Amino acid sequence: MVNFFFQKKKNIKINDILVSLKLKKLKVNYPINDIKDLENANEDDITFFNSIKYKESVKKTKSRTIITHKKFIKTIPEKINVIKVENVLLAVSNVTSLFYPDAVNDNPDFELDQINKKNYKNLRFGKNVLVGKNVKIGSNCAIGHNTIIEKNVRIGNNCNIGNNVIIKNSIIGNNTNILDGAVLGKKGFGFFPGKNSNTRYPHIGSVVVGSNVEIGCNNTIDRGSLSNTMIGDGTFLDNQVHVAHNVKIGKNCIITAQVGFAGSSSVGNKVLIGGQAGISGHLVIGDNVQIGGGSGVVKNIPSNTKVMGYPARNIRNFLKDNKFND
Amino acid sequence: MVNFFFQKKKNIKINDILVSLKLKKLKVNYPINDIKDLENANEDDITFFNSIKYKESVKKTKSRTIITHKKFIKTIPEKINVIKVENVLLAVSNVTSLFYPDAVNDNPDFELDQINKKNYKNLRFGKNVLVGKNVKIGSNCAIGHNTIIEKNVRIGNNCNIGNNVIIKNSIIGNNTNILDGAVLGKKGFGFFPGKNSNTRYPHIGSVVVGSNVEIGCNNTIDRGSLSNTMIGDGTFLDNQVHVAHNVKIGKNCIITAQVGFAGSSSVGNKVLIGGQAGISGHLVIGDNVQIGGGSGVVKNIPSNTKVMGYPARNIRNFLKDNKFND
Amino acid sequence: MVNFFFQKKKNIKINDILVSLKLKKLKVNYPINDIKDLENANEDDITFFNSIKYKESVKKTKSRTIITHKKFIKTIPEKINVIKVENVLLAVSNVTSLFYPDAVNDNPDFELDQINKKNYKNLRFGKNVLVGKNVKIGSNCAIGHNTIIEKNVRIGNNCNIGNNVIIKNSIIGNNTNILDGAVLGKKGFGFFPGKNSNTRYPHIGSVVVGSNVEIGCNNTIDRGSLSNTMIGDGTFLDNQVHVAHNVKIGKNCIITAQVGFAGSSSVGNKVLIGGQAGISGHLVIGDNVQIGGGSGVVKNIPSNTKVMGYPARNIRNFLKDNKFND
Repeated sequence: MVNFFFQKKKNIKINDILVSLKLKKLKVNYPINDIKDLENANEDDITFFNSIKYKESVKKTKSRTIITHKKFIKTIPEKINVIKVENVLLAVSNVTSLFYPDAVNDNPDFELDQINKKNYKNLRFGKNVLVGKNVKIGSNCAIGHNTIIEKNVRIGNNCNIGNNVIIKNSIIGNNTNILDGAVLGKKGFGFFPGKNSNTRYPHIGSVVVGSNVEIGCNNTIDRGSLSNTMIGDGTFLDNQVHVAHNVKIGKNCIITAQVGFAGSSSVGNKVLIGGQAGISGHLVIGDNVQIGGGSGVVKNIPSNTKVMGYPARNIRNFLKDNKFND
Repeated sequence: MVNFFFQKKKNIKINDILVSLKLKKLKVNYPINDIKDLENANEDDITFFNSIKYKESVKKTKSRTIITHKKFIKTIPEKINVIKVENVLLAVSNVTSLFYPDAVNDNPDFELDQINKKNYKNLRFGKNVLVGKNVKIGSNCAIGHNTIIEKNVRIGNNCNIGNNVIIKNSIIGNNTNILDGAVLGKKGFGFFPGKNSNTRYPHIGSVVVGSNVEIGCNNTIDRGSLSNTMIGDGTFLDNQVHVAHNVKIGKNCIITAQVGFAGSSSVGNKVLIGGQAGISGHLVIGDNVQIGGGSGVVKNIPSNTKVMGYPARNIRNFLKDNKFND
Repeated sequence: MVNFFFQKKKNIKINDILVSLKLKKLKVNYPINDIKDLENANEDDITFFNSIKYKESVKKTKSRTIITHKKFIKTIPEKINVIKVENVLLAVSNVTSLFYPDAVNDNPDFELDQINKKNYKNLRFGKNVLVGKNVKIGSNCAIGHNTIIEKNVRIGNNCNIGNNVIIKNSIIGNNTNILDGAVLGKKGFGFFPGKNSNTRYPHIGSVVVGSNVEIGCNNTIDRGSLSNTMIGDGTFLDNQVHVAHNVKIGKNCIITAQVGFAGSSSVGNKVLIGGQAGISGHLVIGDNVQIGGGSGVVKNIPSNTKVMGYPARNIRNFLKDNKFND
């Protein structure tokens, strides 16, 4: 997939990468096109291998250059060039920054300007609407006052965008409403802690919002790091919801107010989540799951399950163990 | 009460309503003035009966037209015309949309303009303040920069409205402060889930804020569906509080940061709620109740009670059962 | 320390203070320079003594005028003039308002104006940026669209300030990022409850943010009452975090999304706090503490401890007692 939002540096070769990682150059230099995960990498992309749970993917990857830790070297097919590092994710961060120097920070888009009605079809909009270059907005949309839509954002037809909304690095479907004060597409909360200052992790992913979606007031939906943050068709989010980087929420979900998702979790279809519940990072929540308000979910939840509690567990057992008449 | 905020369609007759619900027309057509709940409906209003707990109200209602489910028909006085439907709330939603077509979505008010000092008495205001038609603001108020006040909003005397505030469909008393980034009066999170897209529930209620109130930064206070969302005199809300549709909060309450109220709950006077507590929907919380920080309230709380925990219970017993020295 | 943000009234004498507290005047009137806590007060400042836990400080204070309750009088050195009141904090509030009449409310800064590039070195900024008088911004900063920086604010070098940010009464270090929609420096949630209206507590403190800090989207960081609210060097805050008045957060902490801090708590260095955790008021959290997501911390936590739960306790014991396989 083409990355609309971050310009990739061209003409990078393997020795540029090795130099950036403070490693020895190879004798035979060769071009590297991009950095991608094992499954999506092509022959001329660099990839990385950081956990034994991806051992099947590493056998199938098309890439011929892999960043990894010495403990994983045996698992990697012999024909692949291996770049051995102490901290794989830090190296991936450095290489990603090499390809996408704009993806580390979140400088505002200073090239945007007052919206120009001529560029859009049947668009109603408020005062002081600011729009970046190459923004695409479908027909019959409405955009509220003081709203900012940064460069390259794509919005479908019949969408209602509220007041004081900020949208960057995002692709939005049709018939979707984004309510007042929501912030979509900022860099996720990812970095490597340092003694005095932290190294920010580059975020080249986007926020992809489906059709018939509602994003509530003052929501914060961060863009992904290497993959995208996704909100499926027909899903409704209430006010003050936080969605961290790389989270995938399925279709027709109902997420009530003040719910928070930590990074990289995935949520199935038709999932109901009560107010103020929290979902830890890197979890898999199935389809038709119901999560009670205030729950703290710390493990995977299979489909068709109702959970509640902190930590969240089967709702029937939670209620049985918490029958207080006082 | 006159609805300041949503224009009611006139000349609607019972057969217009039946057609909109895909039901057979009556032989004798007659005009319907409005849709109201059992207690507030007049003779020429349509009303609805959806739960046996309102059986006393249905006996006293002045309305002569009721939408209900077949299982409730026996409870309804014989002189009343009954409209029998499968899903009462969905029918109410449709009829409400028929009377108030603007109450389903939350399009920004595109008719507002830069504030004009001449229209207000002793008003101080910032840059880029946008005000809709027919807004009334009392004397000695201050309004911060970039704030939006939509059409027909009423604000009393001596109020301080912060920066980046959005107020729509709201009535505000005297000596009330509304702090930076608060959003008052947007449509509540109510809809009927559908397979691909959800049917939004119309919200013809308002937000009614009393006098001597403080609404904290980045609060979200949604307007009611058929009734109002209310914040009583002397009540203070801290930052990042969420108040859902139809919630009634009494007088002199103290609601600390990040508290959330689900829809239609009512809270008495002099109630103290600690940070991050959550109140489930449709509950009744009495007067002088104290709710500990982080509590999850899932049942009614009688007056003069202190509760804590998740689910919330008597604070003394909660603390006794949670005496950890580790 | 000079207070940049609140102008102190001059030429106040002890009898002005006594009159404001409705107490009898002294025969010998003398000037009072300021109101400060026991440790920071000089000879010509008034101070206050409200809790026996400060009995060592009261012996060492340089002040010769102390507001206190009669039950503490014996503890106070004889040479000090004692002002005896029923409610010490209410009296302190009144005296602070006498010195700093602007510190009670949070009127927007109406003297600010469109930013003028000439006043700053190598500054990039967006549309509609509003800046108050005497604002200092270091070199190589970026400021997003619609952002408001009120009078006397100080910002270091290489800072990125997002869109829709509001900064007042704050001092910010170097290399610090403040993301979209954050609100820094508003008055804390402090007041004395009254029957019909509450008496707001004056807040003459600031928000002091260190260097290499990140403040997330839609954060609310309130200024201190008599002391400052502080965020240490290298600390990162995720989205929708609330930091109440007088909170001190140390260096290199990681605070994930939707965490809330009640007033006057202090947090050490290298503390990790998971999403949605809450920290009660007036607590001391040590260095290298780890607090699990969703925890409710209600007591002091010693350094090098991991806690989780509601109320929070040793994480090992929490997990042992909450091993649910259902």
